[in-house]
Amino acid sequence: MTDHDYAGPDMRFRRLRKKGSRDFALACDIIDAARICHVGFSLGQQPYVLPMAHARDGESLLLHGSIASRLMKSLADGLNCCVTVTHLDGLVVARSAFNSSMHYRSVMIFGRATALTGLDDKKRALNILTEHLIPGRLTEIRASTRKELNATTVLVLPIREFTVKVSDAPPDDAAADLDAAVWAGVIPFALKAGTPQAAPDMNIQIPLPAYLAKNRFK
Amino acid sequence: MTDHDYAGPDMRFRRLRKKGSRDFALACDIIDAARICHVGFSLGQQPYVLPMAHARDGESLLLHGSIASRLMKSLADGLNCCVTVTHLDGLVVARSAFNSSMHYRSVMIFGRATALTGLDDKKRALNILTEHLIPGRLTEIRASTRKELNATTVLVLPIREFTVKVSDAPPDDAAADLDAAVWAGVIPFALKAGTPQAAPDMNIQIPLPAYLAKNRFK
Repeated sequence: MTDHDYAGPDMRFRRLRKKGSRDFALACDIIDAARICHVGFSLGQQPYVLPMAHARDGESLLLHGSIASRLMKSLADGLNCCVTVTHLDGLVVARSAFNSSMHYRSVMIFGRATALTGLDDKKRALNILTEHLIPGRLTEIRASTRKELNATTVLVLPIREFTVKVSDAPPDDAAADLDAAVWAGVIPFALKAGTPQAAPDMNIQIPLPAYLAKNRFK
Repeated sequence: MTDHDYAGPDMRFRRLRKKGSRDFALACDIIDAARICHVGFSLGQQPYVLPMAHARDGESLLLHGSIASRLMKSLADGLNCCVTVTHLDGLVVARSAFNSSMHYRSVMIFGRATALTGLDDKKRALNILTEHLIPGRLTEIRASTRKELNATTVLVLPIREFTVKVSDAPPDDAAADLDAAVWAGVIPFALKAGTPQAAPDMNIQIPLPAYLAKNRFK
């Protein structure tokens, strides 16, 4: 397929218009607050949606995987993709099932990824990924080896065509339901880190570093 | 496109073979432990990945949305789709960035959805959705009206073609890294409910029902 064939994604906000936005800073906040995204693409007539780790490098999203991965090869070949980052922030418990919904923040990024080729570029991108996924980790671990860099595909997707949706309002019930003797409100949800579990094969007894304490993960 | 053109998804486990499974009971556990999924499909050459609420009815996944939604219309028209349910369960903090990864549980379901047409079928399916999303809620709220049922599309996707991936092992470091003076292990993650927030427009002061207490949400 050539660029000429590609009309681009349809990003009109048909439904829930009030929730839609193209605010880049807001998109970055949502992306940066997440560690995984869902990457969608089609091979032939079949769509696939895969969870992947991500990080942001300025105006680009970084993804990485094994050079042996069919997904990474397909994406690096310039398949159109859609990458969605979603936070489920709560349940909106309205007086009716019909008006019940969810609090969420979501970004959909449309485009085509390209694979980094230079070792220095890959090293830099993988460091950004590590530091995003486990903040503080880079100070402690050894550098990636050339062999490791060669075994890893790093994809860069521009955050250029995107939509943002945020739902954070209280229940919006029909007037006729407002006097019902039924509790209404929001049950907030958040992804929380638990107590770190040391690896069973740790030869040297090393205390948990401060940057890995569970309250450091957001 | 006719059925004849559709070869079905490629579900071979190329990478991470040890993590792959087609265990239906395991798939159900993963689906039932989640409230949102990511629905992928293509319109023309453009993939879309949208977060949606879901519930399971036996061997089918239920999705719902407004009859005005383009997504729901496209899916009801029999577009091939991929629905992925993912739990991020933790960060695997290995001695090297290369061997660091994540704990996760994920199900990918492939197929085509059909829309329910009968009001009784829709009512039953929406009740299953409500009870899955907010367990206990059905006992307290009014029934859906005919108008609400007519305004809602309910899609049914068979959980027939699917793959399951579970990653729950400790770090698997290279032998040469095992003596490094670096902490290794797993930082567990879980989606947790917080303190319920009453709606500002609650006319009658009603105490929080027991089924909405934050420790009831898993």
